[in-house]
Amino acid sequence: MAEGITVKKEDDMSEWYSQIVLKSDLADHAPVKGCYIIKPRGYFIWEKIQEYFNQRLKLHGVKNAYFPLFIPEDFFHKETEHAKGFSPEVAWIDSKLTGKENRLAIRPTSETIMYNSYSKWIQSYKDLPLKINQWANVVRWETEATKLFLRSREFLWQEGHNAYETEEECEKDTYNYIEEYRKLSEELLAMPVLIGKKTKNETFAGAEFTLTIESFMPDGKALQCGTSHMLGQGFAKSFNIEFLGRNEKKENPWQNSWGFSTRLIGGIVMLHSDDKGLILPPRVAENKIAIIPIIFEKTKKEVIKKCKELEKSLKQFSPILDIREEYSPGWKYNEYELQGIPLRLELGPRDLEKGHVVVVRRDTGKKEFIKLDKLKLKIESLLDEIQDNLFQTAKQNLENSIVNSKSLSDMVKQIKNKKMVKAPFCNEIKCETSLKTKTEGITPRLISLEKDVKENSKCIICQKKANVIVYFSRSY
Amino acid sequence: MAEGITVKKEDDMSEWYSQIVLKSDLADHAPVKGCYIIKPRGYFIWEKIQEYFNQRLKLHGVKNAYFPLFIPEDFFHKETEHAKGFSPEVAWIDSKLTGKENRLAIRPTSETIMYNSYSKWIQSYKDLPLKINQWANVVRWETEATKLFLRSREFLWQEGHNAYETEEECEKDTYNYIEEYRKLSEELLAMPVLIGKKTKNETFAGAEFTLTIESFMPDGKALQCGTSHMLGQGFAKSFNIEFLGRNEKKENPWQNSWGFSTRLIGGIVMLHSDDKGLILPPRVAENKIAIIPIIFEKTKKEVIKKCKELEKSLKQFSPILDIREEYSPGWKYNEYELQGIPLRLELGPRDLEKGHVVVVRRDTGKKEFIKLDKLKLKIESLLDEIQDNLFQTAKQNLENSIVNSKSLSDMVKQIKNKKMVKAPFCNEIKCETSLKTKTEGITPRLISLEKDVKENSKCIICQKKANVIVYFSRSY
Repeated sequence: MAEGITVKKEDDMSEWYSQIVLKSDLADHAPVKGCYIIKPRGYFIWEKIQEYFNQRLKLHGVKNAYFPLFIPEDFFHKETEHAKGFSPEVAWIDSKLTGKENRLAIRPTSETIMYNSYSKWIQSYKDLPLKINQWANVVRWETEATKLFLRSREFLWQEGHNAYETEEECEKDTYNYIEEYRKLSEELLAMPVLIGKKTKNETFAGAEFTLTIESFMPDGKALQCGTSHMLGQGFAKSFNIEFLGRNEKKENPWQNSWGFSTRLIGGIVMLHSDDKGLILPPRVAENKIAIIPIIFEKTKKEVIKKCKELEKSLKQFSPILDIREEYSPGWKYNEYELQGIPLRLELGPRDLEKGHVVVVRRDTGKKEFIKLDKLKLKIESLLDEIQDNLFQTAKQNLENSIVNSKSLSDMVKQIKNKKMVKAPFCNEIKCETSLKTKTEGITPRLISLEKDVKENSKCIICQKKANVIVYFSRSY
Repeated sequence: MAEGITVKKEDDMSEWYSQIVLKSDLADHAPVKGCYIIKPRGYFIWEKIQEYFNQRLKLHGVKNAYFPLFIPEDFFHKETEHAKGFSPEVAWIDSKLTGKENRLAIRPTSETIMYNSYSKWIQSYKDLPLKINQWANVVRWETEATKLFLRSREFLWQEGHNAYETEEECEKDTYNYIEEYRKLSEELLAMPVLIGKKTKNETFAGAEFTLTIESFMPDGKALQCGTSHMLGQGFAKSFNIEFLGRNEKKENPWQNSWGFSTRLIGGIVMLHSDDKGLILPPRVAENKIAIIPIIFEKTKKEVIKKCKELEKSLKQFSPILDIREEYSPGWKYNEYELQGIPLRLELGPRDLEKGHVVVVRRDTGKKEFIKLDKLKLKIESLLDEIQDNLFQTAKQNLENSIVNSKSLSDMVKQIKNKKMVKAPFCNEIKCETSLKTKTEGITPRLISLEKDVKENSKCIICQKKANVIVYFSRSY
């Protein structure tokens, strides 16, 4: 029984977000710095994501497996770029247990330990494609402030690791998985995203290129929600993965890796919720309705009886029936709004007489009287409407947030004004690096996949020739 | 395409087991000492176990959650017995990351970190019972030799952690969960188990008592497959978990914890398999049938066509259709026997003419001709028969393995002869400790829950008054 949210989303989004997550019981702070606890209501969302994505993986012929938590130090150094990228964040086991020679890291990602096995498992083109995913915890010893779901030293994720005979197949699938992430994000979580390629600085350490989905939060920051990396043959060469090809010659396979994490949960919470509390897309809400009886002494018995009947007949929506008499209906309305239950059903003696129920939508607050015999069907369609409304609203907001810009100073102004700026960019590392320092945290979020850069257009930062169109913003 | 198993189960069970697991592609050795890789065919079994058990948890009102991998050192020392029990096996993070003052352990089990949160979450009797489970990896820095699925430094498990208002509820549920484990083991995995209480030495560190399920392997060793601990109020007191009771007074809740691990997979592999390879209970086999065409040049087209039709119409059994011509049918029979596919379907030109299929059971090798129009129903019933046969055979073996004994020397002889010995025991720690050294590894596996000790019967070890009946054996 939490108190309500005490700050407004518009006024202090960071504090508002933290209150939403804590008070709607999705997660809690942990007594370990950098970590947090996913409470049952939050973990349920993760299970729904897993369920959805496991079905999609099956269609792609990807199988789940599990690799060790520990990675030998020398594996890290086999792929030079990869090692450089992850070294600052690696947590090591006490060397008393391992000796100082070859320490053990706690996995920050599993390319190296998996590809060591791939070099054993892949011998012939007949062993390809090899498609393996794992659901696991990973650790990155970040120093930035912890944010529930969004940034922590340990988090849960899935990581897919495929190997192919040809570059074409590999590249095609690298795009397929980012498209799967878009689907997951939009269809299950009602969170619209942009798909694009990462600039060089933001490319995964060791990859040829990285594709990303980015959503856009109401405070004007982008949230990277999933990435798919075309690894080329670099890891295969470093880890000695070779197969006998159709031509009887030894070849290196082509590889990709792709992952999303519990960060997705933070994204939907921040995107959809309001000053009253959590708003969840119905598809990932465990309890889709709350039933509140309006209790008067005289009619109590019949009203509660009817509510219990409803609880039973609406079981498919995992209803919460709250018949506690020590709390007023108004108090309960607030409570279930805070918790993000998509629909509230109110039933009092007058409703009973008239054979209807009051149904209130969490997203719009809209009230309807629904005849009892039409209730089940109507709830189904209302849940669909809520899911769709959350998506359409967010999509509209995303589209309205994207603006064009032609100068750096204008871009800075626009982004301060919570916009995402679409502009031509030279795509040179030096220019990219200068941006971050010049602007306190603006980064290129993604390169547009449409070849929409005009000839003669100039980079918004350095004014040299532009090679790509990029979406710029601040980010989580 | 592995070669067959090169040793007999009876001759060298340890080597036989290792070959079965590796060659049927359930798991592989890892390049990290003490760890192993669960390959897709093995992980599928774990997913089936999770699916089954999550449904059972739901009926008990238990919710899944996720707590941090890291546990602060001082949490360990709050419950003295618990700390003593786990200290030798704890893996610590490099203290450069944490400082030396309060190091971080990688969880060997999560009582301490979870109960720290429980002390915040439990304030009133209205917050009880609190029932939380987590699926997670845990690490115990064992020095004994690694055995795939059976013994490793990292393993996957579930750990349930409940808190109750009363001792009665708590104790009752402690029994309920061990009963759930029995069901899981017997109904899903066809692995019969004994249920009992652990002796003092074998009780979980910090628990009042521990219940266990133990299966019995063909080499005469017991395998502990799951435990349920009645924790009493000890942890609640150490972690300051208090609630305002119905009587308006502060009270400590009663707690239990219970877990099983990926070790279960090792158990079923060892129990059911034979010299030809893996035998899996059909309920946890991903591909329940293999379809092998008998190919002759003249009739190839029709036979393969029919096989493809079968593959489609039998989709619910996730069939493997193997139409490769570079391998003979006999080679394929061996391969799918090795892999433990429950049923093999053979179809040649003569079968096609007669409108039947040859169906061969993996467990008994029994062959039947089944008319095509009855195939689906017959496969369903054959799979049930296999599941039941595996269980009944194992149950018979378990029962035949239990013998009574009245002297220590006889017990040693019987156990050497791969038996499990049922005998009276004093249940004193000193006597229990002496047994292990006296006999090189015989331990009391469980105390019978039936109050079946006779008056005046004497402890089989020390000859003093016996207080319980115990099952003794060697163990994994």
